[in-house]
Amino acid sequence: MKATVMYGARDVRFEELEDPKIIKPTDAIIRLSATCVCGSDLWPYRGISPLGRPTPFGHEYCGIVEEVGNAVKNIKPGQFVVGSFAASDNTCVICKDGYQSSCVQREFMTGAQASLLRVPLADGTLVATKEVPPGELIPSLLATSDVLGTGWFAADAANVKPGSTVVVVGDGAVGLLGVLSAKQMGAGRIIAMSRHEKRQKLAREFGATDIVTERGDEGVQRIKDLTNGIGAESVLECVGTQESMMQAISSTRPGGYIGYVGVPHGVALDGEPLFFSHVHLHGGPAPVRHYLPDLIKLVLDGKIDPGKVFDLTLPLEKVADGYRAMDERRAIKTLLLP
Amino acid sequence: MKATVMYGARDVRFEELEDPKIIKPTDAIIRLSATCVCGSDLWPYRGISPLGRPTPFGHEYCGIVEEVGNAVKNIKPGQFVVGSFAASDNTCVICKDGYQSSCVQREFMTGAQASLLRVPLADGTLVATKEVPPGELIPSLLATSDVLGTGWFAADAANVKPGSTVVVVGDGAVGLLGVLSAKQMGAGRIIAMSRHEKRQKLAREFGATDIVTERGDEGVQRIKDLTNGIGAESVLECVGTQESMMQAISSTRPGGYIGYVGVPHGVALDGEPLFFSHVHLHGGPAPVRHYLPDLIKLVLDGKIDPGKVFDLTLPLEKVADGYRAMDERRAIKTLLLP
Repeated sequence: MKATVMYGARDVRFEELEDPKIIKPTDAIIRLSATCVCGSDLWPYRGISPLGRPTPFGHEYCGIVEEVGNAVKNIKPGQFVVGSFAASDNTCVICKDGYQSSCVQREFMTGAQASLLRVPLADGTLVATKEVPPGELIPSLLATSDVLGTGWFAADAANVKPGSTVVVVGDGAVGLLGVLSAKQMGAGRIIAMSRHEKRQKLAREFGATDIVTERGDEGVQRIKDLTNGIGAESVLECVGTQESMMQAISSTRPGGYIGYVGVPHGVALDGEPLFFSHVHLHGGPAPVRHYLPDLIKLVLDGKIDPGKVFDLTLPLEKVADGYRAMDERRAIKTLLLP
Repeated sequence: MKATVMYGARDVRFEELEDPKIIKPTDAIIRLSATCVCGSDLWPYRGISPLGRPTPFGHEYCGIVEEVGNAVKNIKPGQFVVGSFAASDNTCVICKDGYQSSCVQREFMTGAQASLLRVPLADGTLVATKEVPPGELIPSLLATSDVLGTGWFAADAANVKPGSTVVVVGDGAVGLLGVLSAKQMGAGRIIAMSRHEKRQKLAREFGATDIVTERGDEGVQRIKDLTNGIGAESVLECVGTQESMMQAISSTRPGGYIGYVGVPHGVALDGEPLFFSHVHLHGGPAPVRHYLPDLIKLVLDGKIDPGKVFDLTLPLEKVADGYRAMDERRAIKTLLLP
């Protein structure tokens, strides 16, 4: 098959690789209906997280099961499935607590920007729909695999409750779906921080009530102005830089909650101001598997349309163009069709 | 009156100061029944947090109200009162959320190692008992003013629940009362990290089920050995150093909770390992006022005896000896009697 391999900074190639095979009896092979480029793929693409060697890329996926190992009990060939970017057994004590992305058997997925994908721990990782869904729902179902699940975790970790005032730091696809998630959880006011017109518009479609374009101290001041001078109850940090983390901490009221889901790059939190900020801090790799059944149902019931974050659709072989468009912020998120 | 003034590192003097007076109509003046030396007083005493100028010291107090300003409505002369180390109005939105130590009118107290003390925002800060309590309860009532309230907040922030497995990092008075707090909250297993025999003994009296003497990687390994290899659900960080914070993070299972109450000194948290640790992090200056009514009741009802942390009692004029004994770890905590 042909698949995406990242060789290094801004060097993404679509080239012939061997078809994946069942390696362990708990594996499944799926034929991808769609895949996409993740904001986190841009860290190595930009050379900020250098790769040691050429690496098959992509970790967001949905598709039809082709084959399963002989220990797989619940997932069957022919089913349409969505899975998390983190494979998990879904039976260990950590999984039972809802932290499947820290499962004792966790494997981070890669190689999903391809036509076929091996999924470890298939019974624990994949969620099958009752029927093969119509094609127009594929983008939104694909979104549940990571970008929506991650935005949802940000909102959950930030303790968004009915009526809450919420700030979303970051206007990438995760941040935008953080807005959608906060709206679903009943937030009363959702302040999206964005200086990009197209993204502001989508944020408003997803439920943002206010847009703040300022950053840094001015951004904090704007948030304070909008929250009686004390900051928001819930803040979603969806970037992963020192600046965005400090923006989040300074925008949260004492006793408030920060959900942070941007993989931190070069972030060092000074203990003393964090202490006196009095915030709750929680985040990490989103336990997407925990949320998948509910998120898939919301999509199938037509309650949410997270696939709107895909503003560029390309055939898989044009994957390099898809990376470039996101790197240059011309596209929010690129959908790839094998 | 005579009062305690810290001039600099290891230079604590007991000297004549003017009696405190009502400055604002919301103030009260109390005559102290007892006061004490806090672990946090040792940071400037050791020169780690240098003082800009000679400063009246002490922030833990209980006593009899002498006088109140004309805007004070609920606190009356003659009452026995306990107050928090952070004065608060107890009416603002932050106070109503239970974060009185970040009250919009907060003032950190100082000057309590004296015979008289001015308490701002008396109605919001002080809690009066119905009757003047018997002398033997004074040490335990004094403890509620900070050291117990802080240990309690650590346990609360660490989400201790009935049956929880809890690790307490730090065997100072706060850590020991964190053990007591976790026990009161119903923890099933309480692992105290201590290499000091007298403190281990008190930890066991307060409810510790296990003692770990190792630190660093060995300490983490011991905790993992005791928790099925995954770490504890709740970890109380009661020191405030980089080493103790890392000990806490590494001892917590994914999805678990850290309550940190040691004022951080030189702590910088690397964002990426924190992210992948998947912990909940919450802490800060303990909102003692939030807990005071319940803690005072537990003491008056004879349910808890937090005053046991005072293993040295001195007349107030010997305050310098009290600091020295704690600095040299000869005393866990020094009670001072005016």
